[in-house]
Amino acid sequence: MSDFVETKSKFFLPKGVIYLDGNSLGPLPISAQKRVEHTLNNEWGEMIVTGWNKAGWMEQPNKVGNRIARLVGAAENTITVGDTLTIKVFQALASAVKHQRNRKILLTDSSNFPSDIYAAQGLVNMMGPDYALNIVPTDKLIENINENVAAIFFTEVDYKTGRRYETQNILTAAKKSGALVILDLAHSAGAIDTNLTELDVDLAVGCTYKYLNGGPGSPAFTYVNPKLINSLDPCLSGWLGHEKPFDFSLQYNPAVGIDRMRIGTPPVIGLAALEASLDIWDKVNISDVRRASIDLTEQFIKGVERYCPMLSLITPRNPKNRGSQVSFSFQNGYAAMQACIEHGLIGDFRAPDVMRFGFTPLFIDADDVERAIAILARIMSRELWQDPKFQKRKKVT
Amino acid sequence: MSDFVETKSKFFLPKGVIYLDGNSLGPLPISAQKRVEHTLNNEWGEMIVTGWNKAGWMEQPNKVGNRIARLVGAAENTITVGDTLTIKVFQALASAVKHQRNRKILLTDSSNFPSDIYAAQGLVNMMGPDYALNIVPTDKLIENINENVAAIFFTEVDYKTGRRYETQNILTAAKKSGALVILDLAHSAGAIDTNLTELDVDLAVGCTYKYLNGGPGSPAFTYVNPKLINSLDPCLSGWLGHEKPFDFSLQYNPAVGIDRMRIGTPPVIGLAALEASLDIWDKVNISDVRRASIDLTEQFIKGVERYCPMLSLITPRNPKNRGSQVSFSFQNGYAAMQACIEHGLIGDFRAPDVMRFGFTPLFIDADDVERAIAILARIMSRELWQDPKFQKRKKVT
Repeated sequence: MSDFVETKSKFFLPKGVIYLDGNSLGPLPISAQKRVEHTLNNEWGEMIVTGWNKAGWMEQPNKVGNRIARLVGAAENTITVGDTLTIKVFQALASAVKHQRNRKILLTDSSNFPSDIYAAQGLVNMMGPDYALNIVPTDKLIENINENVAAIFFTEVDYKTGRRYETQNILTAAKKSGALVILDLAHSAGAIDTNLTELDVDLAVGCTYKYLNGGPGSPAFTYVNPKLINSLDPCLSGWLGHEKPFDFSLQYNPAVGIDRMRIGTPPVIGLAALEASLDIWDKVNISDVRRASIDLTEQFIKGVERYCPMLSLITPRNPKNRGSQVSFSFQNGYAAMQACIEHGLIGDFRAPDVMRFGFTPLFIDADDVERAIAILARIMSRELWQDPKFQKRKKVT
Repeated sequence: MSDFVETKSKFFLPKGVIYLDGNSLGPLPISAQKRVEHTLNNEWGEMIVTGWNKAGWMEQPNKVGNRIARLVGAAENTITVGDTLTIKVFQALASAVKHQRNRKILLTDSSNFPSDIYAAQGLVNMMGPDYALNIVPTDKLIENINENVAAIFFTEVDYKTGRRYETQNILTAAKKSGALVILDLAHSAGAIDTNLTELDVDLAVGCTYKYLNGGPGSPAFTYVNPKLINSLDPCLSGWLGHEKPFDFSLQYNPAVGIDRMRIGTPPVIGLAALEASLDIWDKVNISDVRRASIDLTEQFIKGVERYCPMLSLITPRNPKNRGSQVSFSFQNGYAAMQACIEHGLIGDFRAPDVMRFGFTPLFIDADDVERAIAILARIMSRELWQDPKFQKRKKVT
């Protein structure tokens, strides 16, 4: 039934759990422990400081970048890995604004992930009163592009609703006006078949702990269009973005190519865990993943709508307009999700009333979806969420 | 002889190696593998996304910060951990400049670590022509403090020479003028007895992969003086610095206290390795470390000066004016260091001619220093560095 029997065997999933939250944090690749152990004992332990050369730690961010590139339709040497997504968003925005000189507006939509918006607010506050952040409803993005807009940034798949933006239309409008486009691939990389080269996107950023299964807090990545990279000021300039880091010159000169977007010392141990996941991803075709994920989301929507009429679908019904998650609104969504988790179905909740379920064909198959529907149906029909123990809000869900 | 027999047994050191490069990358704590394995299998594997609550990942940056605080004389809840040192430098500089309003000069010295200077260059370029970075010789820092200086930043121990700055004098001059002081503790934390509370420093940053043995690319940390923190704009504003991250509000409101300096998702796996090292550090008194490190550096200087007259000491002779490293200049320093490494003595080289040796009493004792002197003496007296195989420069040393 599934093309992903083998990949499923490569992830550890706790017994009795159906994990529909890979859109928040992907599960553990079974090989991660051995991979990390190797980095700890055979590299750090045995080589200590000489690991920077001997174990290739210095090149690791770009090597890992190239493996991610294949999954988002990017060319070799256009992606580097490191830092957190918020830092990568800040750097992309700052670089874009600097590049655009007299255009001083950053444009985004109110459905963007808040941390992306916070990064922009921080930047605009730093740059001074000439600069502004314009936050508009998603459907008004295009009409708000004008000759003062330096860059438009948005998350290609809405973290709450799972709606996939019409990236191509936004890009076309932006190009016409001369605005740069920064795409956040947090819910795209490993989930849908985004092709950065075909889209001719200017910059993109993404994280690796969701669909790419890199582990909690695994590093983020930055893509820059090869046409743009050598005229871009990295703004967050650090020694590993320098053309000659070990000359220890007092003047920052950016490296040629994507290397200039590197900042500080790479997170070697975190990258090792991510590499274990990429060993699985290397053998997978993203268009197969996309096809399978559409099947799973269709199956889930159909089942839930049949058995749980009190849940309202807020994800677009047309598969081409959504990512790899399905969201329902429900007034008691928080408690209902707690009940799901207690019954072995892990999804998550986003305020005020959204129940999110993510689908990753690498480790979720049609049988899992069937069982997920059954659990949800029982919880909703028996109103199990009414149990007071599910009402109390925890800090994180 | 050494008070640190027990701590020494807790680090893995390759057979036949004397490791005098803990000032670049600390060695592996033997317990790191088990600690990381626990995070991978028992936390990430078993809990998946629920680990953010159940395993306490969300609080990890501040818990780890409190353990570091003890080693740098900082109060509870004044340090948070994450990102790279260059990012932390950028954030500290940006926050300081924003706080100072009409003061628009950043002041540093030409001996500061280049990446700190690059971070400042990036910031000043972003802020526009009203802002400037003034780089002066170390001994001219104080006389260049004036009413236009927003912040002075320097690395308390010079990465090349091991010179320890007269932090108190610089602080006194800065306070008199109203400039903020940002201290880079890269070569202080775990090495010397800096006391941030007593010094009344405004901001400090540091890394954990040198003397703190957190592993290659382990996260950095930020300290902010409690008197200052709640009037500081974090500038690099991300969701985990928000007062209510999980409200997903579109307006950034900084958290109260050190939490506001948090930015993105914490690097959980890298933090786990660091925790293994802090288990060792928790039982150690930093003033004992300092005392022992002075003994070791004195012993090394005496021995090398006796047996290697061709090496010129560039580290201050008075122990109170140096950190925990000893540097010599030698025209063929690169080749000589390669020869040392081949003979089991690992130090490192910094252009143009500096041979660096770091001393960490946690795993280096007087016997090691004796052997190190003997190896170096043989290499220098027999001119073993003249072997052509040691002449060719590798990318990283």
